[in-house]
Amino acid sequence: MPLTPEQTAEIEAQRADSSATRRPTVAALEKVLYQALPVLDHGFIRVIDYLGDDAAIIQAARVSYGKGTRKLSTDRGLIRYLMRHRHTTPFEMCEIKLHVKLPIFVARQWIRHRTANVNEYSARYSLLENEFYVPDRDYLDSRRAERRAERQLELFDRPPPLPPEHLAAQSRGNRQGRGGTLRGDEAEEAVHIIHSESERAHTHYEKLLNEKVSGEVIDPDRQGLARELARMVLPVNFYTQWYWKIDLYNLLHFLGLRTDDHAQYEIRAYANLLCEIVEKWVPLVWEAFNDFHRTGADFSGPGLEALRGLLDDAKLADADKLEELRKGTGMSPREWREMMEALGRED
Amino acid sequence: MPLTPEQTAEIEAQRADSSATRRPTVAALEKVLYQALPVLDHGFIRVIDYLGDDAAIIQAARVSYGKGTRKLSTDRGLIRYLMRHRHTTPFEMCEIKLHVKLPIFVARQWIRHRTANVNEYSARYSLLENEFYVPDRDYLDSRRAERRAERQLELFDRPPPLPPEHLAAQSRGNRQGRGGTLRGDEAEEAVHIIHSESERAHTHYEKLLNEKVSGEVIDPDRQGLARELARMVLPVNFYTQWYWKIDLYNLLHFLGLRTDDHAQYEIRAYANLLCEIVEKWVPLVWEAFNDFHRTGADFSGPGLEALRGLLDDAKLADADKLEELRKGTGMSPREWREMMEALGRED
Amino acid sequence: MPLTPEQTAEIEAQRADSSATRRPTVAALEKVLYQALPVLDHGFIRVIDYLGDDAAIIQAARVSYGKGTRKLSTDRGLIRYLMRHRHTTPFEMCEIKLHVKLPIFVARQWIRHRTANVNEYSARYSLLENEFYVPDRDYLDSRRAERRAERQLELFDRPPPLPPEHLAAQSRGNRQGRGGTLRGDEAEEAVHIIHSESERAHTHYEKLLNEKVSGEVIDPDRQGLARELARMVLPVNFYTQWYWKIDLYNLLHFLGLRTDDHAQYEIRAYANLLCEIVEKWVPLVWEAFNDFHRTGADFSGPGLEALRGLLDDAKLADADKLEELRKGTGMSPREWREMMEALGRED
Amino acid sequence: MPLTPEQTAEIEAQRADSSATRRPTVAALEKVLYQALPVLDHGFIRVIDYLGDDAAIIQAARVSYGKGTRKLSTDRGLIRYLMRHRHTTPFEMCEIKLHVKLPIFVARQWIRHRTANVNEYSARYSLLENEFYVPDRDYLDSRRAERRAERQLELFDRPPPLPPEHLAAQSRGNRQGRGGTLRGDEAEEAVHIIHSESERAHTHYEKLLNEKVSGEVIDPDRQGLARELARMVLPVNFYTQWYWKIDLYNLLHFLGLRTDDHAQYEIRAYANLLCEIVEKWVPLVWEAFNDFHRTGADFSGPGLEALRGLLDDAKLADADKLEELRKGTGMSPREWREMMEALGRED
Repeated sequence: MPLTPEQTAEIEAQRADSSATRRPTVAALEKVLYQALPVLDHGFIRVIDYLGDDAAIIQAARVSYGKGTRKLSTDRGLIRYLMRHRHTTPFEMCEIKLHVKLPIFVARQWIRHRTANVNEYSARYSLLENEFYVPDRDYLDSRRAERRAERQLELFDRPPPLPPEHLAAQSRGNRQGRGGTLRGDEAEEAVHIIHSESERAHTHYEKLLNEKVSGEVIDPDRQGLARELARMVLPVNFYTQWYWKIDLYNLLHFLGLRTDDHAQYEIRAYANLLCEIVEKWVPLVWEAFNDFHRTGADFSGPGLEALRGLLDDAKLADADKLEELRKGTGMSPREWREMMEALGRED
Repeated sequence: MPLTPEQTAEIEAQRADSSATRRPTVAALEKVLYQALPVLDHGFIRVIDYLGDDAAIIQAARVSYGKGTRKLSTDRGLIRYLMRHRHTTPFEMCEIKLHVKLPIFVARQWIRHRTANVNEYSARYSLLENEFYVPDRDYLDSRRAERRAERQLELFDRPPPLPPEHLAAQSRGNRQGRGGTLRGDEAEEAVHIIHSESERAHTHYEKLLNEKVSGEVIDPDRQGLARELARMVLPVNFYTQWYWKIDLYNLLHFLGLRTDDHAQYEIRAYANLLCEIVEKWVPLVWEAFNDFHRTGADFSGPGLEALRGLLDDAKLADADKLEELRKGTGMSPREWREMMEALGRED
Repeated sequence: MPLTPEQTAEIEAQRADSSATRRPTVAALEKVLYQALPVLDHGFIRVIDYLGDDAAIIQAARVSYGKGTRKLSTDRGLIRYLMRHRHTTPFEMCEIKLHVKLPIFVARQWIRHRTANVNEYSARYSLLENEFYVPDRDYLDSRRAERRAERQLELFDRPPPLPPEHLAAQSRGNRQGRGGTLRGDEAEEAVHIIHSESERAHTHYEKLLNEKVSGEVIDPDRQGLARELARMVLPVNFYTQWYWKIDLYNLLHFLGLRTDDHAQYEIRAYANLLCEIVEKWVPLVWEAFNDFHRTGADFSGPGLEALRGLLDDAKLADADKLEELRKGTGMSPREWREMMEALGRED
Repeated sequence: MPLTPEQTAEIEAQRADSSATRRPTVAALEKVLYQALPVLDHGFIRVIDYLGDDAAIIQAARVSYGKGTRKLSTDRGLIRYLMRHRHTTPFEMCEIKLHVKLPIFVARQWIRHRTANVNEYSARYSLLENEFYVPDRDYLDSRRAERRAERQLELFDRPPPLPPEHLAAQSRGNRQGRGGTLRGDEAEEAVHIIHSESERAHTHYEKLLNEKVSGEVIDPDRQGLARELARMVLPVNFYTQWYWKIDLYNLLHFLGLRTDDHAQYEIRAYANLLCEIVEKWVPLVWEAFNDFHRTGADFSGPGLEALRGLLDDAKLADADKLEELRKGTGMSPREWREMMEALGRED
């Protein structure tokens, strides 16, 4: 980001095409199709194609001859049942294809999810632009975060899912964690080092190639190092890009792990944007996933034992209050019963 | 097959729906979407959904901002290059979803292809119809094969890919192979046994359930055996059905193995129909796959050595004749050069 | 089961071989290596090979140059941490290979787990023995269950993990479920039907083949139907067998699903035996898996909210009682803290 | 490389352990178990564990109760048959686990092979040493390649599989290819840039961390940037390491692609060493793979047609000469027949 005029024109040309189809179509997703949705300082996610919708899950679960859906409340109930009981195969019946631009160190975390298809831009064949990630680049360009937020608002009618990132200090207690935020001189110097060393690396990259990214030869008397070798001086904050295709079940698994607080901020920025895309695409699935796997908690056997010990028998004995509590949560009687059974209250 | 009126109505309802989409659309595939394409005596394949087309492969291979395609001859050349050099990842960028009805013993071979998504009709929840496969059922119903052929002609403008199957005898020389064809009494008796024993098994299935497939209870004083147990008396020629979703690369791999002469006739019947579906969907990919992986051959190192010994030096020395031969095959100069290099003729 | 004398001799020959190795070795698993551990009426599981042990998980998690382990309590703590936080990759660093004999309908459920390697006995090449599963076969042979229990005791020092199965009736309320147990006439007739129809099917199988399983030709003037076709009259309670290899993470996933109450009794019989094998192989992993994924429960976001409402503030306020409760469960302070945070009590 | 004394001691301690096992054991592989086999300037491959051997493939293909093997020539024939006809599942029944140290840009190519298990050293938790790859490092240290060659000779009784690499120039004709070799000033400068810029990057990495890799704090008044952020200035020629586990079939697939001339030199250096490891482990499989998939060639349908046109009928008509030719290649009559059939000579 920003896209070149040629890239913008290619995207607009593809957005302008429209055909009739008998396949299930999701209007909310069509609206953002092919658009570059900004993430971090130069990254983006573009939705390139999708297959299936909420109804396709019902259809597959029922091995149906037609759409398989009945009415909204029944469909919602079935999707929630499948999600709660980890009947994962129907969710594999939807698929999405994305074009993602992301720093190499984020790509290295991302690629660990193996059940996806990937085509990455090759630095063996092609030249890498001088684009790299700098955390808290707002030190350098105060208008940037603002522009990102405006774009997000325009496309999704809501602000970006994560606040802009500051320069995190190393946590003292937790080797993996980020601690507080770097301030003052130390922060300024860190941003400066990352920025200037990245610039410097790209200059050396071009020098080794004996060629500018623009195509201009630097010294006609030199051969230039092979592209696949010259790129080895570029740091892992440089951007790469790929096409990435995945089924909905595995995408949700990815989102469960990568929106977690333990995930690194930079991949969370992508994962959080993906959550919004999933919400547009399959709203019933998203709601169920959110309820059962994002906002809930797992208790171990001993933990469950302890929990039973902690429960207030008196309060549990009052059926009216229990029913009131259940209604307040929006849980269905069946979900409630399953929870009570887990807590050892089966009556 | 034949479908019930309810099933036909559901299919027609879904075929009647049409929406506008910005996604790539393949008219030839839309034409058969949702239709039950007949295979064997009761089976079918229905195309439920698809993602991508020939151009989507180019687009992914180029990690493109737009469609990625240039002109037909360039695109065809790139697809052939990718296919020839086993650059498999761009082919994974297309996906297809099918509804398949097939005998259990065919399903057991089919499911061995692991890189696909499956939702199977459950005989633990639901009752199995009295539908089973009988090879050479034309003994029983001479109009059947004819009707299948008519349907095929109507949908694909060509006759069925495989001739109707006769009752194969066990090969004497090859433990896996089929030998000649059973004739006369032996054939008639075999068809009779398979047919009548299958009918009998279904009767016992309903008796164990204490329930007809129609829902009618047989003996109100009995409980009926659990469905998951009663089904165990049904033989493996009974039909099951599933939704099956797979990417194009893995589908081609499946077709390579399952259209091979060593594959059992019954699964080949499905695989051959799938070839026609793939040809409609991605004609350039199909042509390349056919040329490079279906009609070609692999030679081992020692085989290649022998081949070099067999070649006629005189004939190879005549450049004009060689060029004429090349043109006759339709091979591109690059393909030709690669072959000659493999044969040790690099000049 | 029972094995032929030739099979027993082959197994004993392999058990007699012993070599020195530098690889990690698990004595408790070596003890049962290659032995046929009985399941159901004719099935078995044989452990053929394994790779890694509890320490191999530590080693991989630490990307260690040596064993990676420190002391038992530290190692146990790390394994529990990895299990609790779903850091799954280190558990993939152990692998096990089994030889399993199982009814076809169980094999069809089993094979749905795709991340495993399989080689199945081929009924296209080879003949299938007259061996089939009959639930509650004790009606027919009262000594059988007893012999199985003795064998189990001998190999594992404990009784079989599941009680022998009775003939389950179809549940009225739950279409998938088993209800009560068939009794009296209905039960006797069900066993009789399953048994006699299976015998009959095998007789017809041999007749179609024109060959007994023993190799004897039935009618020298006939050709016999191809094996791959004749087998189609055999019902799905016939036994097949395969080699199956899987990593520990995916095995645990399999066990989580297949020991669940919702799984069919017959596959649970295999899964429960596998649990005992895993316990011998990697006792620390087994303990952690059991605590965190088998005996625990997942609560949804709304459920968690309700749970917070149910908790007795007074009881929670008494730090001494809380600490006593924690100790009673055997939970580590860290596990306890994580649970309390999930319950919204972070102080 | 070189290992620290602590690492060497850990490796030696593990090599000293030996246990008795009933599992198949491969003496040639035990000999190098745990040893660091050098690759490139700082990399290595260590074999950590393995499961199965040549015989295990036979055993699985036969779904055997014992070892499954008969005599060497029969076993060799079966393995060649399975390899030739792409019966891949028995080869999945062997597994190997490696500890690999490799530059990040090599790791990024390697990880694209998805059917493997990986645990990578985490730069979010731990510090990265100042170790990076410099092609043609012999400019800097002339003894290095020599020491590597000696080590290779000691462990494998043969010289390294690939000659040391020079600095390749970018090919003019082929965007992916390496062309000639950089010489003189240009070469010297390239090595100098890669070396000095990598050193510089590590210095900035420590500065951002406010901590030396040794653990020494640089400025007690500063907090230091989080590890997961500071590492982003390190270029992709820095070394990472991982545990990597894969089955034999997928390993062969990896080797087929990564020993190919089109693969980048640096990953070929690893792949070629792996070939030697595979040869020690499963010599019959290695021989078959080499004959059928490494030294052979695939011909397309049109290519096959051309080939038939090129063949000298006269020469083919002389049965004695043909038989002599066959014997010279070492091909079995069956392999020969299959090739002749592919060439349209079935008599």
